[in-house]
Amino acid sequence: MSLNILFHSAPHRWADYRTVLPDALAAAGVDARLSTDLPPEEADYIVYAPAEDRLDLSRCGRLKAVLSLWAGIEGIADDVPREIPLTRMVDEGLTAGMVEYVTGHVLRHHLGMDAHIVNPDHEWRPVPPPLAADRKVTILGLGALGTACGRALAGLGFAVSGWSRSPKEIDGIRCHSADDGLATALDGAEIVVLLLPLTADTECVLDGPALGRLADGAVVINPGRGGLVDDDALLAALETGQVGHATLDTFRVEPLPQDHPYWSHPRVTVTPHVASETRPASASRVIAENVRRAEAGEPLLHVVDRSAGY
Amino acid sequence: MSLNILFHSAPHRWADYRTVLPDALAAAGVDARLSTDLPPEEADYIVYAPAEDRLDLSRCGRLKAVLSLWAGIEGIADDVPREIPLTRMVDEGLTAGMVEYVTGHVLRHHLGMDAHIVNPDHEWRPVPPPLAADRKVTILGLGALGTACGRALAGLGFAVSGWSRSPKEIDGIRCHSADDGLATALDGAEIVVLLLPLTADTECVLDGPALGRLADGAVVINPGRGGLVDDDALLAALETGQVGHATLDTFRVEPLPQDHPYWSHPRVTVTPHVASETRPASASRVIAENVRRAEAGEPLLHVVDRSAGY
Ligand SMILES: NC(=O)c1ccc[n+]([C@@H]2O[C@H](COP(=O)([O-])OP(=O)(O)OC[C@H]3O[C@@H](n4cnc5c(N)ncnc54)[C@H](OP(=O)(O)O)[C@@H]3O)[C@@H](O)[C@H]2O)c1
Ligand SMILES: NC(=O)c1ccc[n+]([C@@H]2O[C@H](COP(=O)([O-])OP(=O)(O)OC[C@H]3O[C@@H](n4cnc5c(N)ncnc54)[C@H](OP(=O)(O)O)[C@@H]3O)[C@@H](O)[C@H]2O)c1
Repeated sequence: MSLNILFHSAPHRWADYRTVLPDALAAAGVDARLSTDLPPEEADYIVYAPAEDRLDLSRCGRLKAVLSLWAGIEGIADDVPREIPLTRMVDEGLTAGMVEYVTGHVLRHHLGMDAHIVNPDHEWRPVPPPLAADRKVTILGLGALGTACGRALAGLGFAVSGWSRSPKEIDGIRCHSADDGLATALDGAEIVVLLLPLTADTECVLDGPALGRLADGAVVINPGRGGLVDDDALLAALETGQVGHATLDTFRVEPLPQDHPYWSHPRVTVTPHVASETRPASASRVIAENVRRAEAGEPLLHVVDRSAGY
Repeated sequence: MSLNILFHSAPHRWADYRTVLPDALAAAGVDARLSTDLPPEEADYIVYAPAEDRLDLSRCGRLKAVLSLWAGIEGIADDVPREIPLTRMVDEGLTAGMVEYVTGHVLRHHLGMDAHIVNPDHEWRPVPPPLAADRKVTILGLGALGTACGRALAGLGFAVSGWSRSPKEIDGIRCHSADDGLATALDGAEIVVLLLPLTADTECVLDGPALGRLADGAVVINPGRGGLVDDDALLAALETGQVGHATLDTFRVEPLPQDHPYWSHPRVTVTPHVASETRPASASRVIAENVRRAEAGEPLLHVVDRSAGY
């Protein structure tokens, strides 16, 4: 009997996957019926990236796993019964895109590009920036994305520190961990990049006291999740100059409401949640590999730890 | 008898070198008198980076070599008699700075950052850029700087091509060479980076026909020399949209005159010759090593080929 896979996402996304996902399943040797309108109760697997249309998965007796197309799953974890494995997306395309975004914006701020991009008075003021080796960058979150970004930045010579829950050793990155490692990771950082998942423990991790540890005029880059930042504290720190600039890709409410002060703040750059996107071809290979593993009784990749929340 | 080394440059530069250069000479085992006001006729070596005050070196009988603090020597080569070796600067700090500038501006244009940095209408239009692997970048000049930049960009996944005078093989870079390789290197390039020296052969290498080979809306980044670009052709290509943006660090006249059309062009970014600067500590080691080599009868590093002009 062949497997039933429900692809549950926005219609435009199905257009991106309708050929690459069947190809990837076939390449992985998975014989499955893939459909966007199967009743969830008949699904063995659900590829899950809902728009508004969340599913009630509480009575899906056949369901063996829910496979997210997203790296961050805080918005959908509650839909999936605890006994059903939920996997998040770790995809080489997604990682590559994030490395490009983070490296690009770190270099932009490091080099002080904005003063040249917008220079209405045509000032010629040749002050070369310091070298990357003299620029302290701290990455909060050393998972799939934070580690890849940290390595790329270290490769360019930046003085990179990082922070994670569990202790780590990564070439070129000064690693700190757990609650008591946060202060050390932030102390004197000139550019801080948020690549944590949003959980009960990480919500508002960048609050007033945390911002107060950064170097004067530091830059905050947040491609993680809006909820990681205490927005009022960030706006206050921008006001005092403690934070020199914030480049934000993620927000508590998206699209960012037109009346949000971030939009008009001269030292905030809003990017519209484009830091990185799951790429259909490489993501399909990850999905297919996970279905193959589940059917072969092998451990799934990238399973969410439901109590940690990521 | 100890050696006489004349340091001939702007006074502010001497401030940067007055301790690090003696230290580097001592570390290299060179016993020398280093001064800024020695008559050139008494100098064994001249560290040369003149402001307005060019020297007449035609009657310097003791002179064994002229050591430039700059990578590009087209402006001073005529000061140095042909029989005196002239070395240019290849310095790890200079290279690192150029890699940061080029990688940063390539990523800026690749990611379309400007539309987020300046976004008066607060548009939220989440269109993720393509991945670097799908972005064609061509570097003209595969010397010390072009090769380092090309490797860094290839490391980020960009599809990198390059062009030099002699044939090369460099991991991750499609190398083209000589006059007939230029067209292939430029065909369809979406971002072109100029890192050639300015010589009789490279002057205006980016002229109308060369620009016409680039992809529609391509980006030109010029941290090489202003004279490499035919300015009128570039402005015309910006007008038609053939070139989408130009980020220029070097100009025929510097500072760029206030009435130059580049200043006010909405799709030109002027950076004030800050792409990279010789860094005193590492440059001093290069100078000291060359004096040591000359005294030991060993071949000098980075000697300018006077007939090639670089
Ligand atoms: N803007 C975008 O386009 C975009 C795209 C993709 C992803 N994202 C965001 O990026 C986040 C990170 O993705 P990822 O794939 O790198 O996730 P991941 O592999 O799960 O890594 C998460 C990292 O955060 C650390 N962490 C979690 N809770 C922590 C805590 N309480 N204290 C300290 N460190 C903690 C983890 O520590 P351990 O290593 O010790 O577990 C891990 O290093 C996603 O959750 C998502 O929100 C954004
Ligand atoms: N904006 C700034 O702040 C800044 C700072 C430093 C340097 N620069 C500029 O960058 C330039 C490059 O520096 P570099 O250290 O990389 O120089 P380099 O090591 O001498 O390399 C020059 C490259 O250009 C190639 N080339 C020269 N003439 C050519 C021709 N006619 N056709 C094709 N290729 C040709 C050379 O080819 P071969 O390899 O075959 O010889 C070589 O690959 C300098 O000359 C300077 O003008 C700018």
